[in-house]
Amino acid sequence: MRPSKRDLNEMRAVSIETGFTKHAEGSCLIKMGDTHVLCTASLEPRVPPFIKGSGLGWVTAEYGMLPRATNTRMRREAASGKQGGRTVEIQRLIGRALRAGVDRVALGERQITIDCDVLQADGGTRCAAITGGWVALRLAVNKLMKAGDVKIDPLMDPVSAISCGIYAGQPVLDLDYPEDSEAGVDGNFIMTGSGKLIEVQMSAEGSIFSRDQMNQLMDLAEKGTSELAALQKAACA
Amino acid sequence: MRPSKRDLNEMRAVSIETGFTKHAEGSCLIKMGDTHVLCTASLEPRVPPFIKGSGLGWVTAEYGMLPRATNTRMRREAASGKQGGRTVEIQRLIGRALRAGVDRVALGERQITIDCDVLQADGGTRCAAITGGWVALRLAVNKLMKAGDVKIDPLMDPVSAISCGIYAGQPVLDLDYPEDSEAGVDGNFIMTGSGKLIEVQMSAEGSIFSRDQMNQLMDLAEKGTSELAALQKAACA
Amino acid sequence: MRPSKRDLNEMRAVSIETGFTKHAEGSCLIKMGDTHVLCTASLEPRVPPFIKGSGLGWVTAEYGMLPRATNTRMRREAASGKQGGRTVEIQRLIGRALRAGVDRVALGERQITIDCDVLQADGGTRCAAITGGWVALRLAVNKLMKAGDVKIDPLMDPVSAISCGIYAGQPVLDLDYPEDSEAGVDGNFIMTGSGKLIEVQMSAEGSIFSRDQMNQLMDLAEKGTSELAALQKAACA
Amino acid sequence: MRPSKRDLNEMRAVSIETGFTKHAEGSCLIKMGDTHVLCTASLEPRVPPFIKGSGLGWVTAEYGMLPRATNTRMRREAASGKQGGRTVEIQRLIGRALRAGVDRVALGERQITIDCDVLQADGGTRCAAITGGWVALRLAVNKLMKAGDVKIDPLMDPVSAISCGIYAGQPVLDLDYPEDSEAGVDGNFIMTGSGKLIEVQMSAEGSIFSRDQMNQLMDLAEKGTSELAALQKAACA
Amino acid sequence: MRPSKRDLNEMRAVSIETGFTKHAEGSCLIKMGDTHVLCTASLEPRVPPFIKGSGLGWVTAEYGMLPRATNTRMRREAASGKQGGRTVEIQRLIGRALRAGVDRVALGERQITIDCDVLQADGGTRCAAITGGWVALRLAVNKLMKAGDVKIDPLMDPVSAISCGIYAGQPVLDLDYPEDSEAGVDGNFIMTGSGKLIEVQMSAEGSIFSRDQMNQLMDLAEKGTSELAALQKAACA
Amino acid sequence: MRPSKRDLNEMRAVSIETGFTKHAEGSCLIKMGDTHVLCTASLEPRVPPFIKGSGLGWVTAEYGMLPRATNTRMRREAASGKQGGRTVEIQRLIGRALRAGVDRVALGERQITIDCDVLQADGGTRCAAITGGWVALRLAVNKLMKAGDVKIDPLMDPVSAISCGIYAGQPVLDLDYPEDSEAGVDGNFIMTGSGKLIEVQMSAEGSIFSRDQMNQLMDLAEKGTSELAALQKAACA
Repeated sequence: MRPSKRDLNEMRAVSIETGFTKHAEGSCLIKMGDTHVLCTASLEPRVPPFIKGSGLGWVTAEYGMLPRATNTRMRREAASGKQGGRTVEIQRLIGRALRAGVDRVALGERQITIDCDVLQADGGTRCAAITGGWVALRLAVNKLMKAGDVKIDPLMDPVSAISCGIYAGQPVLDLDYPEDSEAGVDGNFIMTGSGKLIEVQMSAEGSIFSRDQMNQLMDLAEKGTSELAALQKAACA
Repeated sequence: MRPSKRDLNEMRAVSIETGFTKHAEGSCLIKMGDTHVLCTASLEPRVPPFIKGSGLGWVTAEYGMLPRATNTRMRREAASGKQGGRTVEIQRLIGRALRAGVDRVALGERQITIDCDVLQADGGTRCAAITGGWVALRLAVNKLMKAGDVKIDPLMDPVSAISCGIYAGQPVLDLDYPEDSEAGVDGNFIMTGSGKLIEVQMSAEGSIFSRDQMNQLMDLAEKGTSELAALQKAACA
Repeated sequence: MRPSKRDLNEMRAVSIETGFTKHAEGSCLIKMGDTHVLCTASLEPRVPPFIKGSGLGWVTAEYGMLPRATNTRMRREAASGKQGGRTVEIQRLIGRALRAGVDRVALGERQITIDCDVLQADGGTRCAAITGGWVALRLAVNKLMKAGDVKIDPLMDPVSAISCGIYAGQPVLDLDYPEDSEAGVDGNFIMTGSGKLIEVQMSAEGSIFSRDQMNQLMDLAEKGTSELAALQKAACA
Repeated sequence: MRPSKRDLNEMRAVSIETGFTKHAEGSCLIKMGDTHVLCTASLEPRVPPFIKGSGLGWVTAEYGMLPRATNTRMRREAASGKQGGRTVEIQRLIGRALRAGVDRVALGERQITIDCDVLQADGGTRCAAITGGWVALRLAVNKLMKAGDVKIDPLMDPVSAISCGIYAGQPVLDLDYPEDSEAGVDGNFIMTGSGKLIEVQMSAEGSIFSRDQMNQLMDLAEKGTSELAALQKAACA
Repeated sequence: MRPSKRDLNEMRAVSIETGFTKHAEGSCLIKMGDTHVLCTASLEPRVPPFIKGSGLGWVTAEYGMLPRATNTRMRREAASGKQGGRTVEIQRLIGRALRAGVDRVALGERQITIDCDVLQADGGTRCAAITGGWVALRLAVNKLMKAGDVKIDPLMDPVSAISCGIYAGQPVLDLDYPEDSEAGVDGNFIMTGSGKLIEVQMSAEGSIFSRDQMNQLMDLAEKGTSELAALQKAACA
Repeated sequence: MRPSKRDLNEMRAVSIETGFTKHAEGSCLIKMGDTHVLCTASLEPRVPPFIKGSGLGWVTAEYGMLPRATNTRMRREAASGKQGGRTVEIQRLIGRALRAGVDRVALGERQITIDCDVLQADGGTRCAAITGGWVALRLAVNKLMKAGDVKIDPLMDPVSAISCGIYAGQPVLDLDYPEDSEAGVDGNFIMTGSGKLIEVQMSAEGSIFSRDQMNQLMDLAEKGTSELAALQKAACA
């Protein structure tokens, strides 16, 4: 019944190729079906002014899409002179999500910037970015720990994200683009490997939903993020 | 136990003064405690290109804060040359929320722009903007119906929004600024007068939360938005 | 003969509500007829570089209009990415005017920023902004003096402003929008409470005027600003 | 007593070299002492939207300063990404001033853009720009009339501008930079060849002035602009 | 003697993986050693205004670098609000180079945009972009011909580019980053498969060079581009 | 056969008027036929961050065109909010070219900015800018040496530039606008007075060229720049 023939609670095939680029302190190419996102973690000297001298660390994120990552070419944001509203919203979400899984005292006063660039898009790019971004972050932190710059592991539990929605009247896991563009309700769920919640965003445009439906989507999200957490751990092993 | 001495499930005093400005097709000044937002609805001739000729209407929103709406003066966005990420994120939320409560076929091919400008801020500005924005929208639609331009009422149920969060370990309704800046978990709930969900956003920065806590906040939000819906109806009567 | 039935030398009803917002060091909502401007004074730590270490104070101003302050909605300047030419010109005028009435030695090396935001426009917004801006400035300076941070009062004489013009061949005081859009000659006069001149701007677009007419407008302006000065004093008492 | 040894009512040496560039429909290099401004008039096909179809013409102006026109190099506005407030204010003034001397019905539905670029600055650049800009405009209109595109001369009377101010307690004509930077009161007067007023701007920063002083400056301005009108006519002959 | 141990006239290993992304009409990932560039060709409906109605086609290019393509993270151009000077210069070069190899009459009135995004940089990114960009273009044109939209092949001869320079006093082929940052003279040579020249850019910063040296670099470039042309043909076969 | 009747290897008449503006440390107006460029050299206190403390000097350049320097008015770059791609490319070229002729150790840790503003354009503006820019630089350095701030002359050999191209099938020297807009191949050659190469840029749009043709253009360029070097020396004597 789904365009991809998947079961209602079935994720797309996921692969995570670590070390995709050589300069970054951590990097991976994550593929969730036909959605491909390159994630890099950069250790940076400058800390945001508001935490200078606090001893606390910072994790932030930036997000971009190559112009032809999508079905029709979009205007390059660098050429149009600003990041669009959707881009800004997504990169703020990625940063908040990853920070929530970091012990900023243990990280110490340093900044790690996660760049998530979509090479090919087919729905769920923000979720792939968070899931892959955590892997890049994990690899960069491993390097810091190996070098003895960080003593206590600041990353307790993997952070991953999955979209769920009501498609054709049914709650489904991991919407691809054809589903996403038709779905009446669309949610993004960011969770830890142990099933705690970091961020929940459910939204209806031109439709409304009940608390029951919300709970059905939550159930699917728990299944999806627990599978993703296992894949993240395997990729970083 | 709350800084304002309110009960855990007690909203701030809310007032809605309609007709606050004379040019707009609909307008109100909404006060939720010390958060004051001026909302105007403007009927506009141009429809976004992607719905031209479709016969469908459109509702969109813009959000701003006066530089000294806050405790320390913020830089004026018009002077700094762009809207900040927070502003963009909020105005997209307001637009999505209000559109979800509109029958766009009944509205017909016309656009209504809701401007929400914060004159004074004390937490919860986006929720006040949505709640007041709906009132401005309602008044503008009333005008269209009176003039016979719209025959079937495109606004079924009031749309309102309230924030809830975990403050000092307790779930509380309608966070003010002192609570908001300390809260571990912070959510915004947008609901219809009849208790249906339009958008749910719960977010933890440097903290995580359980599904139980999520349900407690949902309960508070249902209480809050049902009270707001009654106030909206009274204001538009 | 005037659309508003006022006498040629009659101002609109003026009201000044002080303390309109709670965060600013000084604030008021000034209404000149249907023109409503919210003025706030913010004491700011940073002084412009060119007076650093000079011991002199600085007063500056910013001006804005809410998108639907006018009869048809104007584009939000923050969204369009820059302040328009008219805005820039007006805020420079407000800053110059208010500075001219300040003893910058007595003020000491600190900056006060006056924000003037038009909530509703019906002609004469820049004059209302100057008149109300002075009130906000007065209240902020009172606070500094009460705290003992400033010993000698740096504000000698109220500064106020009024527009005059040739409408339907007659010199009239305090143009409202219907008159302003028809007037052949339009002037803004900024004066002190004791009748001295701070700035005079008279301009003709598509028309020219004689020195005689200029003197008639000056006479009206003297009447208007002396009335405004009395209202300013009463509001700050 | 003046740094330049000029009499109080003596202008700087003025020269106007027409045809300074070959592409423009009209052009001149105007020198007022060490202030040198290149003015060009460009006949343009596009009319501003608000007069389309009205049959009326439009004259507009743009102003710029080369980075090293001044004593110390200023940042290039094209590189800094926007025109500064002073630039915007000046070019709006030039446009208004020149338009006031044009019969827009006689001009017909076409636009002439006057570019005023300061090659070397020594005070009074906006006045030189208006005076030279009118010459460029006159030459462009002559071309239109010669070609038969315009039948009735839309330029009745030359438009010129001069600055006057209170320097060292004395009213002086045509301030140069050393005077301008010291003057307590500074005015720009735009007049027609027959002595009518187009725009008057008098401004005091940190000082105030009396109506008597205003009249003294007006007297000087009448002398100055009548001399400039004679020079303009000679240059265009 | 070269850091990479290559012979003076030896290129880095080159691989071209076609079809790297699924949405574009043509795409490849080109690797020249550690320089990896993703090139996509997008067939676009809009033609630039200056060729509208001419029947001629257009090929244009955009270039970008992911923030962590380099050794230290660079600021994201979309976030800084504009494309840097180096970016603009490079993308103009790519566009000119590819257009020179196109029969624009045979292409017909359509536009193809080549996006070249550097995933990992190690010197020579603009040359890799041109070489890979031509492959993407070739694939897109193949599709047009297969569909019968284009009858005569508009791509006569492959276009490729290689850098050569004087490193440690010796002319070398295909500079990598360590060589590039030390080279006294640095040139980019764009040639056709049959050895004709399209663009030559040789530049010395803080050094100068003789016509003899120029000829030695030309010899190397001829060798390099003829090898690249063979690889391009093989990739598109 | 050339539109201007010049011989194939004949430059346009060149004149260099030094001291054209009074504020700059060095300045000239260079005319190459109808191409007129005002060049100024500004000694500036700030050194770019990457050479701070190195003891090395820096020379940089900015380029601009007045809006009506060309046959039809171009949009003012300051008004459009950014420098176009062509402008950026040209000013980077001028800076590189002039730096290549400077002994940066002898110059010492100071910056000289060369502004090149085109007052009138008729082809070859970048070459005129480099040639005139070197004269302005020479004059500014003379001043530094006279004052004893620089002991060893950092300018060894004049730097000049000339364009050559294939016009109507023939190699010609110093293209004017009518030739430039028709030329199949177009090159800019920057050379020292003693015939060494600094930068070579040859480009074909919609055409290709042989190594033989490249050599013919090189021969012309050697003739042109040796003539320009003699004129530069005479102007600075």
